Amino acid sequence: MSPRSASPIIVQKFGGSSVADAEKIKNVARIIVNTHDQGFRTVAVISAMGDSTDDLVDLAAALSPNPSGREYDALLATGEMISVAAMAMAINAMGYKAVGMNGQQAGVHTEDLHNRARILEIKTEAIENALNEGYIVLVTGFQGINSKGDITTLGRGGSDTSAVALTGALNAERCDIYTDVRGVYSTDPRVVPEAIKIDQISYIEMMELARVGAQVLHPRAVELARQGNIKLCKRSTFELEDCGTMMIGEVATDSNNGVTGIACDNSQARLAMIGCPDNPGVAAEIFGSLAHENISVDMIIQSLGRREGTNDIAFTINSVDIHDATRVLEAVKAKIGADNIAIDKEIAKVSIVGAGMIDRPGIAADMFDALAEACINIKMISTSEIKISCLVEKDQGHDAVRSIHKKFFPHAHTQQGVLLNEKVGY
Amino acid sequence: MSPRSASPIIVQKFGGSSVADAEKIKNVARIIVNTHDQGFRTVAVISAMGDSTDDLVDLAAALSPNPSGREYDALLATGEMISVAAMAMAINAMGYKAVGMNGQQAGVHTEDLHNRARILEIKTEAIENALNEGYIVLVTGFQGINSKGDITTLGRGGSDTSAVALTGALNAERCDIYTDVRGVYSTDPRVVPEAIKIDQISYIEMMELARVGAQVLHPRAVELARQGNIKLCKRSTFELEDCGTMMIGEVATDSNNGVTGIACDNSQARLAMIGCPDNPGVAAEIFGSLAHENISVDMIIQSLGRREGTNDIAFTINSVDIHDATRVLEAVKAKIGADNIAIDKEIAKVSIVGAGMIDRPGIAADMFDALAEACINIKMISTSEIKISCLVEKDQGHDAVRSIHKKFFPHAHTQQGVLLNEKVGY
Repeated sequence: MSPRSASPIIVQKFGGSSVADAEKIKNVARIIVNTHDQGFRTVAVISAMGDSTDDLVDLAAALSPNPSGREYDALLATGEMISVAAMAMAINAMGYKAVGMNGQQAGVHTEDLHNRARILEIKTEAIENALNEGYIVLVTGFQGINSKGDITTLGRGGSDTSAVALTGALNAERCDIYTDVRGVYSTDPRVVPEAIKIDQISYIEMMELARVGAQVLHPRAVELARQGNIKLCKRSTFELEDCGTMMIGEVATDSNNGVTGIACDNSQARLAMIGCPDNPGVAAEIFGSLAHENISVDMIIQSLGRREGTNDIAFTINSVDIHDATRVLEAVKAKIGADNIAIDKEIAKVSIVGAGMIDRPGIAADMFDALAEACINIKMISTSEIKISCLVEKDQGHDAVRSIHKKFFPHAHTQQGVLLNEKVGY
Repeated sequence: MSPRSASPIIVQKFGGSSVADAEKIKNVARIIVNTHDQGFRTVAVISAMGDSTDDLVDLAAALSPNPSGREYDALLATGEMISVAAMAMAINAMGYKAVGMNGQQAGVHTEDLHNRARILEIKTEAIENALNEGYIVLVTGFQGINSKGDITTLGRGGSDTSAVALTGALNAERCDIYTDVRGVYSTDPRVVPEAIKIDQISYIEMMELARVGAQVLHPRAVELARQGNIKLCKRSTFELEDCGTMMIGEVATDSNNGVTGIACDNSQARLAMIGCPDNPGVAAEIFGSLAHENISVDMIIQSLGRREGTNDIAFTINSVDIHDATRVLEAVKAKIGADNIAIDKEIAKVSIVGAGMIDRPGIAADMFDALAEACINIKMISTSEIKISCLVEKDQGHDAVRSIHKKFFPHAHTQQGVLLNEKVGY
């Protein structure tokens, strides 16, 4: 069955590992054509092939320590242009009509900002015309065009955002994010082979998981899906019979144990301003200065300092910001008269996320229990309504995740649970 | 000295081998910046890095036996987008203002045709604005945009054409084509180490040399330069002190021996229709049918056939067209009642080109002499006002070129001539 102009639209997105070479491109072409044959008007967003974006990043690094955003975006955007043209060829070779569009041709208009522009509007006329003429439409992920006609990019992982934004703009039925895993797992299956695939997850849990370090979906994509109430599905390019993980508004929490997912983030560093005077405005001075330099702060803890009348203020940031943050803190230290700055890069942030947490007392205690059982010391704790994070020694991060997973998903840690996951390649 | 808006414009073009890696890109960046520092408003057309276009061609071949022109062009055009963005970064890193433009941004409008579109118009406003704001402007070679907003390409070697067309549209002072050799040679220095670099050559000789197989400049670029009387120079990226070969309208012919260059083309095949009836319209039938299939024919010779009342009609075509041409000829043979078709792929076409040939009788005789001295048999001869071509056995092609070169450039074949060229790397 071939789709007509009243047929529902499906938007699909294929990541770099799904289109890493000609054979994989042909495999994806079959998935796209199959969707078209089921009667859907089909739009596919394609990422750059394999590691090709990394190669472009390396080229830029070899040429300039600080390339201009405009040229950097123009360079990086070529990766998706290649995969879209290649995919169109593969689909055409199967006897189907396909048309490739770059960000400009697809009408993806963004902010003027480079490297991490937000999509302002998608003028869908060109896509809709092509769909209604029976074409499968292939769109470059990750890129758009700004008011000056310059190419912009949406930041790493931005192809997810492109796909969700297109789903909304086209009023499409569903957005399927295809990747090399079966969906979203209770934790990283490379760390815990017993990890369980989650069938349904709420947007808010998904965003929180992404924020605490789970390699799931781009947080901005999930936020867009939440705002537009868009059906968003993460599934495998290589195991089509598995229908993946569906993101929806609310998930009935009585069906689980209160914890949906467990994540470990090794990219954080802990900074502390030791011996801050106990005056009003000290915390504002520290975090205002960091915000001014665009440095995001995650966990914050204030405790009594060793010296009387002082506090210690500790917090975590992304490791890439250490250099800038230290510079900022040195200035603040001099201004407020603190004792010294402590830096700890050897940390891991282990988090549990779950919308059901609110209704279930004792979840935090269970998490601390699991860590104690594994003899892991907790350096910092922070909680939100649906998340608890603990800072531990970096080399204990994976042990912590395993112990916590066993505590909350004991049924998965039977012989059968392991066998089930080994069958699918973990 | 920085250029002002009234300063003359220079257009430069850098081929793929000149920008094959980050170090070479930086070297070219210095050449461009140096031109800017001399007070010229500077536009540089950049080809795809090294063999990257071949990689894209291979990718397309792996995906489709017959990719659509639109997608093929979109794919191939990415190579130049990468090198332009990279070059802009390299120049910016040197502290200069540079802006990269793809075909669409530079206003290069072409025919709707794909793979070998002709440039219809260059809307130079964006380029001129950037130049007048003090920017060095970098433009993707080889590509433009058609009336539908689709990306088009100008065919292999089309970056030369882009550069010459830009020179004309911008009313620029000169177009410098930078490459990995010092200029145009009397013949291929890899075949004849004694080959002499030509300081000046007329457009018409240059076109003829390109047409008979010399790897010099894209013929369409030279034709454009001739029409616009554009100063066109071919020179080396790596030996800047050499000012290369300048193409101009007329070269005083008394300064040479009548022969400007010698070329060998191994890509031809010879076809013959044996035993054609000696009726009017037979040749028209053969060549009309070939033209209808877009097959270009080069040398044509008609001779008396062995069978009384018949002729043999022999001609050369590009080897890639053999399959199609044979199919066409089989149909024509049946229609006109010829005896059979002969195919010979083992040929080389050796040609001498020179505007001075017209005034010098005996040049053809000298060429045949040179071939006889090397014991090389001539299979076909064709002449024009400024060219003589001889078909020889393929494996004798290089010997033929060497013998002819020695005949017309005897002074180069002294000990000193060889030493001179060895010094520059041949």
